[in-house]
Amino acid sequence: MKQKITILGAGLVGSLLAIFLKKRGFEVQIFEKRPDPRFQNIHSGRSINLALSHRGWQALAKIGMQTEVEKIAIQMFARCIHTLDGYTHEQPYSLHEATKAIYSVSRNRLNQLLLTAAEAQGVAINFGMKCTKIEIENNLLGFRNNQNEYIKINPEVCLAADGAFSVLRSQLICQDKFDYQQSYLAHSYMEFHIPAGSNNSWQMNKNSLHIWPRDSFMLIALPNLDGSFTCTLFLQNEGEVSFQNLDNTTKGKAFFEKYFADALALMPDFEKQFETNKVSSLATIKLWPWHKNNFCVLGDAAHAIVPFYGQGMNCGFEDCVEFDSLLEDNMTDISNIFNNFENKRKPNTDAIAQMALDNFIEMRDLVKDQHFLKLKKIEAAIIKKYPKKWLSQYEMVTFSSIPYSEAKTKGIENKLKLENWLTKHGENYVPTEDEL
Amino acid sequence: MKQKITILGAGLVGSLLAIFLKKRGFEVQIFEKRPDPRFQNIHSGRSINLALSHRGWQALAKIGMQTEVEKIAIQMFARCIHTLDGYTHEQPYSLHEATKAIYSVSRNRLNQLLLTAAEAQGVAINFGMKCTKIEIENNLLGFRNNQNEYIKINPEVCLAADGAFSVLRSQLICQDKFDYQQSYLAHSYMEFHIPAGSNNSWQMNKNSLHIWPRDSFMLIALPNLDGSFTCTLFLQNEGEVSFQNLDNTTKGKAFFEKYFADALALMPDFEKQFETNKVSSLATIKLWPWHKNNFCVLGDAAHAIVPFYGQGMNCGFEDCVEFDSLLEDNMTDISNIFNNFENKRKPNTDAIAQMALDNFIEMRDLVKDQHFLKLKKIEAAIIKKYPKKWLSQYEMVTFSSIPYSEAKTKGIENKLKLENWLTKHGENYVPTEDEL
Repeated sequence: MKQKITILGAGLVGSLLAIFLKKRGFEVQIFEKRPDPRFQNIHSGRSINLALSHRGWQALAKIGMQTEVEKIAIQMFARCIHTLDGYTHEQPYSLHEATKAIYSVSRNRLNQLLLTAAEAQGVAINFGMKCTKIEIENNLLGFRNNQNEYIKINPEVCLAADGAFSVLRSQLICQDKFDYQQSYLAHSYMEFHIPAGSNNSWQMNKNSLHIWPRDSFMLIALPNLDGSFTCTLFLQNEGEVSFQNLDNTTKGKAFFEKYFADALALMPDFEKQFETNKVSSLATIKLWPWHKNNFCVLGDAAHAIVPFYGQGMNCGFEDCVEFDSLLEDNMTDISNIFNNFENKRKPNTDAIAQMALDNFIEMRDLVKDQHFLKLKKIEAAIIKKYPKKWLSQYEMVTFSSIPYSEAKTKGIENKLKLENWLTKHGENYVPTEDEL
Repeated sequence: MKQKITILGAGLVGSLLAIFLKKRGFEVQIFEKRPDPRFQNIHSGRSINLALSHRGWQALAKIGMQTEVEKIAIQMFARCIHTLDGYTHEQPYSLHEATKAIYSVSRNRLNQLLLTAAEAQGVAINFGMKCTKIEIENNLLGFRNNQNEYIKINPEVCLAADGAFSVLRSQLICQDKFDYQQSYLAHSYMEFHIPAGSNNSWQMNKNSLHIWPRDSFMLIALPNLDGSFTCTLFLQNEGEVSFQNLDNTTKGKAFFEKYFADALALMPDFEKQFETNKVSSLATIKLWPWHKNNFCVLGDAAHAIVPFYGQGMNCGFEDCVEFDSLLEDNMTDISNIFNNFENKRKPNTDAIAQMALDNFIEMRDLVKDQHFLKLKKIEAAIIKKYPKKWLSQYEMVTFSSIPYSEAKTKGIENKLKLENWLTKHGENYVPTEDEL
């Protein structure tokens, strides 16, 4: 008789995890505080979009959903850099194959597909159930539903994929010997919307991730299925150029005119958006360990990261794949694998947390920096000459399943080598095979 | 009309702060969840003791309590190192004046004195009132008393000195843009008691802080007024020699016989103590910022540190002194000074947090390390020759009010110089005045 698993959170990670567990034959129930997103009136395409890449696809393939998700995903083969004087140029994501892409998907659409698939497998999903009590020592979970009724259960196993503001994590950090860190970025973000053009056409190249790098801040845009783009402005909270100083719409518009004129030209209702849209914070969250007794966190609840490597969801999906792999040898008591799971994942989630912070510098600054471009030039020449001998850090993180910690270490080594060749031989140097 | 101040916590920092504020003419009330420690049956001398040093004394002097506290304090002029083969040797704390001491005081006794002084000033102290609700936006505090009655207030200003497990801090970290970190040490501690000898005499030198450094772990002992000593064993949680492996009294006794034979000989009831006494954790806590609206944390609630520099209480007392100093120019609205207060204190509390971690290495390891002793030898020669030109880091932290951050920076510089002289000239070198 297999254990009954209780999952907190029916977001991307919670619903994917439920499918994995159900396929292993466990009884699975999910509790989610929000209403069912499939029955909400969501403006098509106006939701936040995410960049799905190799690790995410691996997880979807393992549960047979790759084809289904491909239908709602838009390939982005390159970064399209928008310069201050209005020019654009493209930098392919993969230096190995120009056809390799990352994929823009709507968080909501993907969540809806996963929920439907989970239910089709027989997962019971309880929406509108807010977790109001967790007693780890007493093995108790309490929920309040929309009718304000209180329901309590004693879970055999509780897996919390309840996001960056996890209720289980807030309990774990009150336990003895739980290390915890939340660090906010000095930048926050605000979203904008570029509507579709005539006949639902995209007004910019839809197969690129658009970036307006401006040193200490940047704007990015990802395509939506309906012809629109979702833009995100990342800007410092305080200082000369900051959200604090953009304290009215006139200043906001002047700021866009100065720095993002081509994007502004595609937003006829900019003023209204600027007045309505809210500024949101960005934080990195670290916890250790991830479990106690029958309770374990995963996904953002255990390791929320900043979005600049496009790996938050992909990393959470990889959690599910790792968890599922560990289940192969431990089908009787899931809580037996918590130790292995957290030990295996922690070095990797720490690594991607740091790389995501580092990539912010690269995205907003270095993609237009001459020194950075020279290093890229040498790297491109190496990959052209020895395609099997060299992987860039971006390639390892985005287009492979090489553990994040390894990608980070290898990436640092690569960078030192490139810097060294540039200093010694200049940007046109192509190292010998022995030097790699 | 001055503001009414609500303080959470009637511990050392809360009660001291209350006295400072009352002396400035504010109306002050304290809420404390525990019962009044003055009416509890506390075994004299068996409570935890603390090392009171310059910063703590400065605070007590500022409210006129120095003489009163001196009566319950025992001078410790030196570290008394107990070697593995049963020898002892003394290292004076101050290389400047052998008469400079740190002081062993009972946490409970000191707390009692401060509470009585606060009440004498007219501070209202409400014991047995557990803070069960804090709504920062609604400016609300809710308490439950021993009769399970619920009392709520709208504080004009709320200062939380409610310790390492602060209720206010647990609310602040749920607010946007509050950075937070709790990091547990790989070591925990367990207390032991060496009873008084005949006629309440001390069985070891009472004017020293006793240390049994054993590389990865150590035992320390501080004298109590009644002739006893309180010992603390600091030991790793896991590993070959660890609390985990001392899982029965036989092993515990064998461990003490091997490493602390002279201390064990003074504990006739060791077995009983080992069975009864609990193992406690050690953590460093960091928060930023420290306030929101009318609510502000200070003391351990804002910056709990490990005990190895003997500065936890001294640092909390210095918080009160700084807060009081800032009040001089801002008597109308206390919440106006929160910004200044936290900005002034944060670099210093971060510095002592790090120095306290570093000093653990020194205490358990380096006080018997030959290299360390050689550096100390050069430093002693310098201080002898140029007493006004050189302060050791320990001297700055313990016997001065030099800001902790400055002491830390200067300490690192000093160490580099000493290392350099030792490498170049050997342990008998005395630098010229220009070299300092």
